[in-house]
Amino acid sequence: MSDMYANPEIETMPREALQALQLERLQKAVKWAGEKSSFYQDAFAKAGVSAADIQALSDIRKLPFVTPLDLRSHDVYDRLTLPLSGVLRFSYQEQPAGEFLQLYTSGDVAHNVEMMLRGLVAAGVNRTSVVGVQGDLSDSRLLDVQYALEMLGAAVVPLGTDYRRWFRLMDCVSMDAVVSTPQLIMQLVIQLQAVGKDIAAYPLRMLFSLNDMGLQNLLQRHVVQRSHARVYNFFAPPALGMAGALFSCPAQQGQHVQEDYWYPEVIAFGTDTPVEDGQMGELVLTSLMAEALPLIRFRTGQAVSLCSDPCACGRTFVRAMTPLQGI
Amino acid sequence: MSDMYANPEIETMPREALQALQLERLQKAVKWAGEKSSFYQDAFAKAGVSAADIQALSDIRKLPFVTPLDLRSHDVYDRLTLPLSGVLRFSYQEQPAGEFLQLYTSGDVAHNVEMMLRGLVAAGVNRTSVVGVQGDLSDSRLLDVQYALEMLGAAVVPLGTDYRRWFRLMDCVSMDAVVSTPQLIMQLVIQLQAVGKDIAAYPLRMLFSLNDMGLQNLLQRHVVQRSHARVYNFFAPPALGMAGALFSCPAQQGQHVQEDYWYPEVIAFGTDTPVEDGQMGELVLTSLMAEALPLIRFRTGQAVSLCSDPCACGRTFVRAMTPLQGI
Repeated sequence: MSDMYANPEIETMPREALQALQLERLQKAVKWAGEKSSFYQDAFAKAGVSAADIQALSDIRKLPFVTPLDLRSHDVYDRLTLPLSGVLRFSYQEQPAGEFLQLYTSGDVAHNVEMMLRGLVAAGVNRTSVVGVQGDLSDSRLLDVQYALEMLGAAVVPLGTDYRRWFRLMDCVSMDAVVSTPQLIMQLVIQLQAVGKDIAAYPLRMLFSLNDMGLQNLLQRHVVQRSHARVYNFFAPPALGMAGALFSCPAQQGQHVQEDYWYPEVIAFGTDTPVEDGQMGELVLTSLMAEALPLIRFRTGQAVSLCSDPCACGRTFVRAMTPLQGI
Repeated sequence: MSDMYANPEIETMPREALQALQLERLQKAVKWAGEKSSFYQDAFAKAGVSAADIQALSDIRKLPFVTPLDLRSHDVYDRLTLPLSGVLRFSYQEQPAGEFLQLYTSGDVAHNVEMMLRGLVAAGVNRTSVVGVQGDLSDSRLLDVQYALEMLGAAVVPLGTDYRRWFRLMDCVSMDAVVSTPQLIMQLVIQLQAVGKDIAAYPLRMLFSLNDMGLQNLLQRHVVQRSHARVYNFFAPPALGMAGALFSCPAQQGQHVQEDYWYPEVIAFGTDTPVEDGQMGELVLTSLMAEALPLIRFRTGQAVSLCSDPCACGRTFVRAMTPLQGI
């Protein structure tokens, strides 16, 4: 079973120890953001809170929320916690919702790669796997996947964005898995159909979907029906700047929150009030280890309930259940 | 001066020691290719040579040549020296000259990244640099650049292939250098002109050109005139599968051959005869450390003379001089 975890110590940590780790990291994260980023300095001052107010995890509720609109209406450099010389990587995404510039320290990259590694290992990717990476690697989220796969020693097939290259490589390399976005996976299925080929004829067993649309992969059923592959969803909205804050395990009963890196809350829709344990509401995420661009109490707009019951996969990370879970 | 070398021990190695290292590696490379790759097995048997015949560097002349046509007319798997499970990375390039599938072990990737690292450090890139990487990172050569830059601790700005993203990032991040192909660099210059901007107005000091067209960067003068940046050329034909087998140093008197990884010869055009020392002819390259896909006596089609006079930069690597050198 231990080869099913990239980091068994963290992934199966007893919840009390995990919560102690979270509190310690939350205190540091709030201090770091409040001292180093003018955006959070202002926001905390306006709310009359500071790092000293965080004595328990529940004290996070004293902190103000950050919404997607807040991110769009402030320059990214206002949120940045360090001089540009401390930035290792830039990334720019253009999305229907607007443009997103992300900045990463070397620590941020290492954490993001670690999160991807856990999600890939959870699904069964290992050094014998052959994995296609579909899309534009100048998207930092996909580059983290590339790094994680090479760290695992899996054979990586960079597929790019050109469907002729997809065909050529699928015909000459037998791939176990493809990592992609829901949009590109559907495009692959459709382009194959257009030339009289069938994705189900290829030995694909796993499809990893870096889902920038949300926690629910609405294309999942189509893709599963057509490919016979298992689809693993990674929550990858551009505002988070990374994929895999939540990831699917083989039990596929909700998505695990990487709680050592992200603290999850659920808030009643349209309010600032936390819901009762296990009730449905809006997922709010706080980065616990982000260096360049912390996100404190970010309202994701995603409808979830949190479940901390033991998972069949053995992970103690809480699971986010979506309204259509299991459908 | 030592911060001008990524690997001073190798880059300034006395030529006698370097040649001893080359002979040792050549013997291993020929043995490896002859035993593990059916393509070289056949080629060596036909020529009646084997690894035992290589007792001195000059014995390389007993080995048969490989031409671009040989590569195109044989399946890449005939050249492959190991089972697919030993492959870490695949790469596919479509070029005017045809398609190129490349396969790499983890050792190959490490060597390629090391070669790029040396070339970048030679030009002055360091951890304070901000470097844009322009193009499609599913091209393994560009991915090696990305890895090398992150190893250096330089801040990397993945620019991708969309000119709107180039503009956006150039306007919000001040870049010292851009790594690209000659085609994309020219496209950048022209697209900027088209919207009334001038590349010379940006603080670019270095342009690294991964030149898949040849050893001479025919666009170099245009780009230098327009950008005021220094252009560093990396020889990156798709057949080699990597960039930087030859790289420019600040002295810019010819391009250094990474002789611990590649053994260079010069052959009279249209013949199999070596030229006299220092005479112009066709560059032939032999990989000394390639694992997945060795290249033995590959005829590059490039016109060069080799110069082993001491270089002002302090490197002892031989330099390839091109016919228009210095023009």
